[in-house]
Amino acid sequence: MGSYLDYQSARPVDPRVVVAMLPYFSEKFGNASSLHLVGDEATRDLEDARKTVAGFINAEPEEIIFTSGATESNNLALIGYAMRNRERGNHIIISEVEHISIHNIVKFLEKNGFIVSKVPVDQYGRVSVKKIADRIIGKTMLISVGYASNEIGTVQPVAEIGRLCRERNIAFHTDAVAAEGLLPLDVKRDSIDMLTLSSNDMYGPRGVGALFVRKGVKINPLIIGGGQENGLRSGTENVAGTIGMKAAVELMQQEMYDEVTRMKGFRDTLIERIPKLIPGTHLNGHPTERLPNNAHFRFDGIEGESLLLSLKDKDISISTGSACSSKTLEPSHTLISCGLLHEEAHGSLQVTVGRFTTQNDIDSLISALPQVVERLRTLSPLYNRKEGDRS
Amino acid sequence: MGSYLDYQSARPVDPRVVVAMLPYFSEKFGNASSLHLVGDEATRDLEDARKTVAGFINAEPEEIIFTSGATESNNLALIGYAMRNRERGNHIIISEVEHISIHNIVKFLEKNGFIVSKVPVDQYGRVSVKKIADRIIGKTMLISVGYASNEIGTVQPVAEIGRLCRERNIAFHTDAVAAEGLLPLDVKRDSIDMLTLSSNDMYGPRGVGALFVRKGVKINPLIIGGGQENGLRSGTENVAGTIGMKAAVELMQQEMYDEVTRMKGFRDTLIERIPKLIPGTHLNGHPTERLPNNAHFRFDGIEGESLLLSLKDKDISISTGSACSSKTLEPSHTLISCGLLHEEAHGSLQVTVGRFTTQNDIDSLISALPQVVERLRTLSPLYNRKEGDRS
Repeated sequence: MGSYLDYQSARPVDPRVVVAMLPYFSEKFGNASSLHLVGDEATRDLEDARKTVAGFINAEPEEIIFTSGATESNNLALIGYAMRNRERGNHIIISEVEHISIHNIVKFLEKNGFIVSKVPVDQYGRVSVKKIADRIIGKTMLISVGYASNEIGTVQPVAEIGRLCRERNIAFHTDAVAAEGLLPLDVKRDSIDMLTLSSNDMYGPRGVGALFVRKGVKINPLIIGGGQENGLRSGTENVAGTIGMKAAVELMQQEMYDEVTRMKGFRDTLIERIPKLIPGTHLNGHPTERLPNNAHFRFDGIEGESLLLSLKDKDISISTGSACSSKTLEPSHTLISCGLLHEEAHGSLQVTVGRFTTQNDIDSLISALPQVVERLRTLSPLYNRKEGDRS
Repeated sequence: MGSYLDYQSARPVDPRVVVAMLPYFSEKFGNASSLHLVGDEATRDLEDARKTVAGFINAEPEEIIFTSGATESNNLALIGYAMRNRERGNHIIISEVEHISIHNIVKFLEKNGFIVSKVPVDQYGRVSVKKIADRIIGKTMLISVGYASNEIGTVQPVAEIGRLCRERNIAFHTDAVAAEGLLPLDVKRDSIDMLTLSSNDMYGPRGVGALFVRKGVKINPLIIGGGQENGLRSGTENVAGTIGMKAAVELMQQEMYDEVTRMKGFRDTLIERIPKLIPGTHLNGHPTERLPNNAHFRFDGIEGESLLLSLKDKDISISTGSACSSKTLEPSHTLISCGLLHEEAHGSLQVTVGRFTTQNDIDSLISALPQVVERLRTLSPLYNRKEGDRS
């Protein structure tokens, strides 16, 4: 399948995770709510998985709710907390660069009587703790800031935001999907009240995720029914999927350090070489506070869509931005928040590497990109005009 | 693992379904929202699956929303429809024997301004269409009656309820999970507006389900985010799971007729022989309008929990009732609705057979059950007293 450099939008399940899941499809298939032997096994395995996932973020097992994925976890956190704790206020703060699910969830909350402040970010996409503090009012009940941008890779000052929230007695939620497996997560160290995890972003199966909810923090369920997951997420437990998430976390615990070192090498090669090979290249996102697997560029005079399609012809799979909204023609809200013009945002390329990235994938991109950019610039009235301006 | 006779609470994934899913974990793992090659494949495969699932219930592909399972589908149908169509009224009708998720969802809707009528059932657990019609008022906007009881196996007069709803311009939802793969489903024939499907109940993977929503019926989403599934169910698509559901449906389309014939044979053997071998046995549910895989008994003077544990010792996995609430001590609401006393409801045993049930499993139960019941009756003050009364 050529070179896959779009780990941000989807990751393969690690074959070792598939092996771990396999017995749970057709043999150990019990319903954890049944009382017989097959059901007992399912319960035990589910609780083992809960312990592993909790350990990964320094939480307690009873603080983990398994869900169908990160989007559901974000919905459960924000809607579940807001609806349950209306007496604590109706003001919510998020950053401008949150994942589209957070933006759309708060729109729903706004229709339901909540007031939402969106804190701007600097040119690197980083939110300032002071600016968050300035927005806090008496009615502020919840602050949600993603651990890192899944798009431009900028890491947020999560521990400082957590400290601020704890001091001001405001609940703090962070969507940690972009950071999981890349940065060490610790809900105690960072004073986090709710944290969203996905399985696939750690090379586990899709359709599984988790929400950490700190003991004592009360939320309403989103999906109601048989009362599974302590009444907070009903529906027959997806044991095979959960076992997959557990296996993915275990591999991460063993291999994360080496893996991150390897990815950083690839990332740094890209960040160093591409601007040298292609004049008019700019790095989006933070120069240092960025995810170890993310390199995000924009090229003067280039339209991202054409860039992506030209690379597709060369069997390189890559993104212009967030996969979650890549089918719309809107420019990335994250890049616009960083102060880019629409045309600059449209001219961006996101490279995300991962566990199975090879030196060959990196070399392919480095060898293909300069020609592709050059060809597109030749065709671009925008770039020609610019060049004309300069001459 | 001994004899498994609890297909109602969990089914193994068919190994052929696992084979179909396997390539989608580590190879064809694309995000259907990505624009590159890997993403294109995912989109195509997802739409193929949608077509297959739609065909199975005589719906159109664009009428299928993939979800994380039946409980989520029920939530999306009832909450999504009720919240979106408030101007059509605030009265909802369900039957007394609905799945616990429906009961708990309408409790939530009651807290949000809706009024819910629960129509009683006859001694066999069957709802009467006339009684439903009697409850309809000007503000009735939604009727939800499950296709069949997942517990006692009684099949409801779905086509007649559908006709009534269509005539009165009321939306009709049916949770068809208990009936799928056992009875031929047809949303057009039965005038159904929304229908809940699960993947696991057709030997597909857990964590996947679908909701059919007829063209023109408007609902609100429950999980908000990137706008997947036509904006009605956000979250990165679980392609592997969906492919599993597709494979499960395809097998069902090929094998359902023979499978149902086989299951009916097992069921009829149990229903015929057990009452002969064990005096004081009664069949719960409808004598003829019942699922082909369900036999549900009660035994005078027996406590279901003890029965289940004694059978567990003999390596027979079986249920006393709905797995979804088997960990509570409450008697089955379905059996109570059929007019059973608490002690009778507690003395019930649910046998559900499935694709992998063998004659040997049936023989094991028939051979073990009479001794187990006899021993428990010897220990039962309840039964002795009864016997005493009789003498």
